[in-house]
Amino acid sequence: MKQSQLFTKTRREPPSDEVAKNAQLLIRAGYIHKEMAGVYAYLPLGLRVLNNVSRIIREEMNAIGGIEIQMTALQDKEKWVKSNRWDDAVVDVWFKTALKNDAQLGLGFTHDEALIDILKNYIASYKDLPRYIYQIQTKFRNELRSKSGIMRGREFLMKDLYSFTRTQQELDAFYEKVQRAYHNVFRRCGIGDSTYLTFSSGGTFSQFSHEFQTISDAGEDVIYVDQAKKIAVNKDVLNDEVLKGLGLTRSNLVEKKAIEVGNIFRQGTRFTDALGVYYADEKGERQSLYMGGYGIGVSRVVGTIVEVLADDKGLVWPKEVAPFAVHLIAIAGKSGEKVSAAADNLYADLEKAGVEVLYDDRDVSAGGKLADADLIGIPTRIVISEKTLEKDSVEVKERASGETKMVALSVAIDHFA
Amino acid sequence: MKQSQLFTKTRREPPSDEVAKNAQLLIRAGYIHKEMAGVYAYLPLGLRVLNNVSRIIREEMNAIGGIEIQMTALQDKEKWVKSNRWDDAVVDVWFKTALKNDAQLGLGFTHDEALIDILKNYIASYKDLPRYIYQIQTKFRNELRSKSGIMRGREFLMKDLYSFTRTQQELDAFYEKVQRAYHNVFRRCGIGDSTYLTFSSGGTFSQFSHEFQTISDAGEDVIYVDQAKKIAVNKDVLNDEVLKGLGLTRSNLVEKKAIEVGNIFRQGTRFTDALGVYYADEKGERQSLYMGGYGIGVSRVVGTIVEVLADDKGLVWPKEVAPFAVHLIAIAGKSGEKVSAAADNLYADLEKAGVEVLYDDRDVSAGGKLADADLIGIPTRIVISEKTLEKDSVEVKERASGETKMVALSVAIDHFA
Repeated sequence: MKQSQLFTKTRREPPSDEVAKNAQLLIRAGYIHKEMAGVYAYLPLGLRVLNNVSRIIREEMNAIGGIEIQMTALQDKEKWVKSNRWDDAVVDVWFKTALKNDAQLGLGFTHDEALIDILKNYIASYKDLPRYIYQIQTKFRNELRSKSGIMRGREFLMKDLYSFTRTQQELDAFYEKVQRAYHNVFRRCGIGDSTYLTFSSGGTFSQFSHEFQTISDAGEDVIYVDQAKKIAVNKDVLNDEVLKGLGLTRSNLVEKKAIEVGNIFRQGTRFTDALGVYYADEKGERQSLYMGGYGIGVSRVVGTIVEVLADDKGLVWPKEVAPFAVHLIAIAGKSGEKVSAAADNLYADLEKAGVEVLYDDRDVSAGGKLADADLIGIPTRIVISEKTLEKDSVEVKERASGETKMVALSVAIDHFA
Repeated sequence: MKQSQLFTKTRREPPSDEVAKNAQLLIRAGYIHKEMAGVYAYLPLGLRVLNNVSRIIREEMNAIGGIEIQMTALQDKEKWVKSNRWDDAVVDVWFKTALKNDAQLGLGFTHDEALIDILKNYIASYKDLPRYIYQIQTKFRNELRSKSGIMRGREFLMKDLYSFTRTQQELDAFYEKVQRAYHNVFRRCGIGDSTYLTFSSGGTFSQFSHEFQTISDAGEDVIYVDQAKKIAVNKDVLNDEVLKGLGLTRSNLVEKKAIEVGNIFRQGTRFTDALGVYYADEKGERQSLYMGGYGIGVSRVVGTIVEVLADDKGLVWPKEVAPFAVHLIAIAGKSGEKVSAAADNLYADLEKAGVEVLYDDRDVSAGGKLADADLIGIPTRIVISEKTLEKDSVEVKERASGETKMVALSVAIDHFA
């Protein structure tokens, strides 16, 4: 894409109403627009990143047998009353609204109940199990405060996967599979090294649940990390008994602030029993259905990548999530037409070779273009100028490492394709 | 995908609470689930169709220079008050809700105001124009009644494109381009022959707007069609003066019921002036910005395809929107293992060749499988059975035409890849 066609512009100063680094940088670089606190529109660059993270998650969910659907934001009251999650005293993040006939509706903050209601039509016998079903869908949560940019949204994109199995053992086996898939997701998103499987409270569901926590000073959680064992314990559940049970020693733990990028729960039979969905076993006898729930905050992952990887010049995107692979920058100088022609040709050739390129064809100073490129954070920058053309070359710089090299124009396409 | 992994099942009888053919068939075939009237979840097959229609629209919007973003459902009151569209007496389809601090919010029924607010940051001078920006996003409309299945949703997927130009002439030129792009969309969705560019009321915007109306008895609109000229006039604006202006003769018009699948409006400067977004021309003088708005109801298009193309046996999908290209059906009979092995091999080979296949590997009667295949409506059905294997062949049937032929197993892959 030509940058002149991108309608967004960068800005030098962060917006005065944002305290979170992720929102400041993403707004400065033109990735997102703040509709209100916790509610952000995704502009062209931001949407490309969001879609890339969604694609990675989708691939990993499909690889473990997940099948994708799309549930609805509008939820009627009935099924949430059955599970005792309709009352605002029980769930305090509902946005509620109403039909013209005054029937009360809620905006889905999660979809356990909604999916179970669907599955009533499709699960009857043990032959219909197991099922692994997910969606990547907008959630609404009426948070009292929302100051963490896209990391704590009132409206945000989430992947929620649900498993339905005959037994606790089958649930446990799939639960392990999801852990491995989640590690793949966070590794591909460039935050694998700083993301820890973390023991947390199971709430009403079970003794423990697991969170995936990414170390960052921007985090709202405190965790205790055993770096050698690559696991952590949430402060909320840390006590001697728990440590003993997990085989951890307090002296090996380091306290860190962290961002919860994913969580996995064993709901067991709580919701399925409440909503009356069972299966018939081989003998035709009615049995409870075991449920697991597995979330990843898609937009929160985008924010976390920013918090963890950005530097003082701007955003730094890992290859798989970057909005473009290459940022091509023409610095016209005195021999403007020659440089422009060479850059136009290279742009056309890269596009033809299937490389995703953002081509800065704007009439802007060299310094402005280079600063914008640093702020936007595309992994590889190619500069073509009078100086590089003297050597029939382009200058290539990696955004993350800052490494620079010259590449001959004659081999540039092979180099990047 | 193996059909045994698809969690949905077909049902023989339509649900008692649906009168619309599209909802009846899509529910019977397991494509959608009704959350409440006008609110439907998309199950695996349905989501694949919805995504295919979105992809077609996205390709056509990109081809005319559109750039994609994603705005938010939650909308704050302020900007809608400025354009006089907040009041329920003016816009009667708002769903409204509130933050914890009682600040009122609405769920976006359209996004003109929201986009203009974003563009305040990015349009200053004539150099920033023209801009063509679209999204494919969930809209919420609190309809009093919703009995047309997915054709009139309270929560539904819509593509909305907006153009911003310096002059009425530039707006008119782009408006023509969008018309051609829309014809491409509806042709690729298999409803091109029955979809007419239709003159309609411009409302407060201009003398006329245009709708794209697809002839169907399920339609809620009445239009008058000139089949030779391939244009139509909405009943609401039909009078002698209009006919004269359009060069149409009443005797050449045929009255038809039709479904509005798209509409295009010239908003002109109404919203941009109201929200105070202008541009500076070459002389630095402030000028009004011309806006156009162009909608396609993505989920409504899916419903319309069903209404227009389905037959008494079930759904009939055109190639580009079908959830799968091929429905492979193994009919085991007496020599079950031999048939299953041959079908497994063919399935693996088709997948390897990149063909999207739904493979009916279920333990179900031949009659049941064939009836399900007709109901599900995938364009090409391949049957492999004891009988076809005697001839080292498969039987291939086109869902739309009913044409059947035998294809040798040795050339089957080349045939479908």
